[in-house]
Amino acid sequence: MAKEKKLVEAITSMEEDFAQWYTDVVKKAELMDYSSVRGCMIFKPAGYAIWENIRNELDRRFKENGVENVYMPMFIPESLLEKEKDHVEGFAPEVAWVTHGGLNPLQERLCVRPTSETLFCDFYKNEIQSYRDLPKVYNQWCSVVRWEKETRPFLRSREFLWQEGHTAHATAEEAEERTILMLNLYADFMEDFLAIPVIRGQKTDKEKFAGAEATYTIEALMHDGKALQSGTSHNFGDGFAKAFGIQYSDKENKLQYVHQTSWGVSTRMIGALIMVHGDDSGLVLPPRVAPTQLMVIPVQQRKEGVMEAAAELKERLGRVCRAKLDDSDKSPGWKYAEQEMRGIPLRAELGPRDIAENHCVVVRRDTGEKITVSLDEIETVIPQLLDTIQHDMYERAKAHLDAHISDAHDYAEFCETVNTKPGFVRAMWCGDQACEDKIKEETGATSRCMPFNDQEQISDVCVCCGKPAKKLIYWGRAY
Amino acid sequence: MAKEKKLVEAITSMEEDFAQWYTDVVKKAELMDYSSVRGCMIFKPAGYAIWENIRNELDRRFKENGVENVYMPMFIPESLLEKEKDHVEGFAPEVAWVTHGGLNPLQERLCVRPTSETLFCDFYKNEIQSYRDLPKVYNQWCSVVRWEKETRPFLRSREFLWQEGHTAHATAEEAEERTILMLNLYADFMEDFLAIPVIRGQKTDKEKFAGAEATYTIEALMHDGKALQSGTSHNFGDGFAKAFGIQYSDKENKLQYVHQTSWGVSTRMIGALIMVHGDDSGLVLPPRVAPTQLMVIPVQQRKEGVMEAAAELKERLGRVCRAKLDDSDKSPGWKYAEQEMRGIPLRAELGPRDIAENHCVVVRRDTGEKITVSLDEIETVIPQLLDTIQHDMYERAKAHLDAHISDAHDYAEFCETVNTKPGFVRAMWCGDQACEDKIKEETGATSRCMPFNDQEQISDVCVCCGKPAKKLIYWGRAY
Repeated sequence: MAKEKKLVEAITSMEEDFAQWYTDVVKKAELMDYSSVRGCMIFKPAGYAIWENIRNELDRRFKENGVENVYMPMFIPESLLEKEKDHVEGFAPEVAWVTHGGLNPLQERLCVRPTSETLFCDFYKNEIQSYRDLPKVYNQWCSVVRWEKETRPFLRSREFLWQEGHTAHATAEEAEERTILMLNLYADFMEDFLAIPVIRGQKTDKEKFAGAEATYTIEALMHDGKALQSGTSHNFGDGFAKAFGIQYSDKENKLQYVHQTSWGVSTRMIGALIMVHGDDSGLVLPPRVAPTQLMVIPVQQRKEGVMEAAAELKERLGRVCRAKLDDSDKSPGWKYAEQEMRGIPLRAELGPRDIAENHCVVVRRDTGEKITVSLDEIETVIPQLLDTIQHDMYERAKAHLDAHISDAHDYAEFCETVNTKPGFVRAMWCGDQACEDKIKEETGATSRCMPFNDQEQISDVCVCCGKPAKKLIYWGRAY
Repeated sequence: MAKEKKLVEAITSMEEDFAQWYTDVVKKAELMDYSSVRGCMIFKPAGYAIWENIRNELDRRFKENGVENVYMPMFIPESLLEKEKDHVEGFAPEVAWVTHGGLNPLQERLCVRPTSETLFCDFYKNEIQSYRDLPKVYNQWCSVVRWEKETRPFLRSREFLWQEGHTAHATAEEAEERTILMLNLYADFMEDFLAIPVIRGQKTDKEKFAGAEATYTIEALMHDGKALQSGTSHNFGDGFAKAFGIQYSDKENKLQYVHQTSWGVSTRMIGALIMVHGDDSGLVLPPRVAPTQLMVIPVQQRKEGVMEAAAELKERLGRVCRAKLDDSDKSPGWKYAEQEMRGIPLRAELGPRDIAENHCVVVRRDTGEKITVSLDEIETVIPQLLDTIQHDMYERAKAHLDAHISDAHDYAEFCETVNTKPGFVRAMWCGDQACEDKIKEETGATSRCMPFNDQEQISDVCVCCGKPAKKLIYWGRAY
């Protein structure tokens, strides 16, 4: 058992040091590795396979909603980046600059895209002439670069993978509709596919995207009680259209500016998966996103007939789920520890006695529960079990979220709650940025969002200054 | 008919000016557009959808052959790029350099990957310790940058999309096997899926990849008789392993260097699709790769029942192929011209008379043939017809290839053939690079490959110098 223990011992426990636990899981589950380029990561097969599943499912949902994929250049000329004032102020300090092509200096330096609003605007300016050319609902899957000082696997790195949708519409109403549609698509995806409940809402002006009129967000709660912004959708109004001159002639042949949106999610979602569902044995993946859903592990595999029976079981289960067989020469205990570390939702243990009794022992990764399943029923039981796990994982995460939302009615209560209760703190706000700044500075909590369903008023006054309150806000410390 | 004529008239004919015809098709079929960044392209929805189909099908075939996907950083530190001497000489003159991150100069400049051998080697160095860690068969889908002076849509641009596989093996034999396996996978894909016949063979030392021991290639013939290198697979032996120190301990616990390969195909394949199958009405896509396989076009669509019948037909056909309905308010003739320009393999015309007679008129894009098909049999006929088109397109391209391979026995015949007969010229070679250089300089033809099945000896002597011949070579002018 020495080896098995070693694999597990190498993980710091969550309670002891959450940040170290996170890094250990990322490394031991073989999701990623550091590269020779500071702040840039390597997605290893297990990590990239999760991203492929996220991408394929999101892409399917996008296409059902009229989204078309394109690909824009990765470089942005400096003059183009500078066209929209707020936007360049937001991004210029953190972009990587290309100054030489081959042996020659460039006439104008190019940044590696941190996001592609400016390129899409430049494209739409030529592409859109008439109302017949609208709407444009384009998206691209690519990597972007932001020269961050502090980096962290999946959560913040100098290069990351994402999708960015960029749309142009005839009217403000249609743009707003698309902004909300995409935010809800993200939220539903997080909840249905990743089993992660989210708070949907709007960012304050302080926290909104550089150049946006309104930014909507989904906020998830990690196991340690910190928030993770997991997807955003922006309504630009006609600000970019005016900066770039994107006009169309309407049915009366009058020139009008288009209304635009953009929206994106990234490999951050993998960070959320780890920090919402993981435990002290490693990663725990919800079945829908898990690249491998079940691992068949033979016991006493050298005994006659065991390997053949395990291979047959894998074949049968491969028709109803994503099943694999671990036929390596490691011990069963070592294989269990690996399957647990990698977050594979189920394992099926099969040894000589099981074969004789025509069953196998199925173990749930999320609960550790052992279930003896007749081999006659295995093709029916496993898919049901995967559905149950998916459902239960969501319910547990939802219960965790609900248990970590507190209300604060005055500033003393607010400060104490932030300091003693991990999670979101709901409190009223006057709408003044000075209060937002003060809260952030003094407590470390930022405004995460103004929730969509905020009929419930906690109090009449701002939690910070006591003036009349305008908005309910979810506050929290965040990644 | 004025509008329809305009759409078609805008294309230069192939015979008149092939290069202009190519650019016109790229533009009019809305595959791509130029961007504000010189030499970088925008993949529009129609162009990107072709790439998605290529990628999905290749990725499926890769995974069937044990390939796992990963993602490496897009930046390479200069010192890393310089580790393998031949490799850096080949690539350094054409890379883009990042010198600043945010507001600060970098300590070491980074190039944007032109290809990722060096990054994979740096990764494998740490990842591979024992024979148990082998083989590694990794691939990534990404974009790469090469600062080309002359660019051309899909064929050569400063940024392009591709996949690059990088493998490490215990033995030289296994590496060679993988190199050939991937080349054959590419060739089969080109022939089965893109309906493009290819010549499989090995590059001469002059033409091989910077740092490779051997480069294998598939060469396709464009409609104008020029060759297009469409995919390559390289065997590196242990050259990179020695430069980067990638060693494993074998079963006897002795340290050994790994043997490596790399292989890639790119969005160039879309250029091949256009130039092999296109005609004076635009793009012609083989059904398997076509994003839309059939367009339903209503005739006299304002007459009662026509639009409903067309929508129903689209619904029915959508279950057996990738079908769309053009329900825009353009005239049928305009819609036909658009469907032809975009290379959609079939259209189904449906008007009041057709509905009354319970049939529709199906038109093949590749031949123009009109077929009246009973609506009772349409779900059976269309898939068969798509198979027939796929088959016929391959056969036509194969006939074109075969008709454009000539043999040359001496230098005078060689020069005349190159100048008068577009296509490949087969001729014997002594193995001396001086002859290869002379031929290139004097005729513009380069050695495309030494074919795998070269039992057939055209003559005993080198076509250039008359010394004893060693190898049969396919020569040709190339893109």
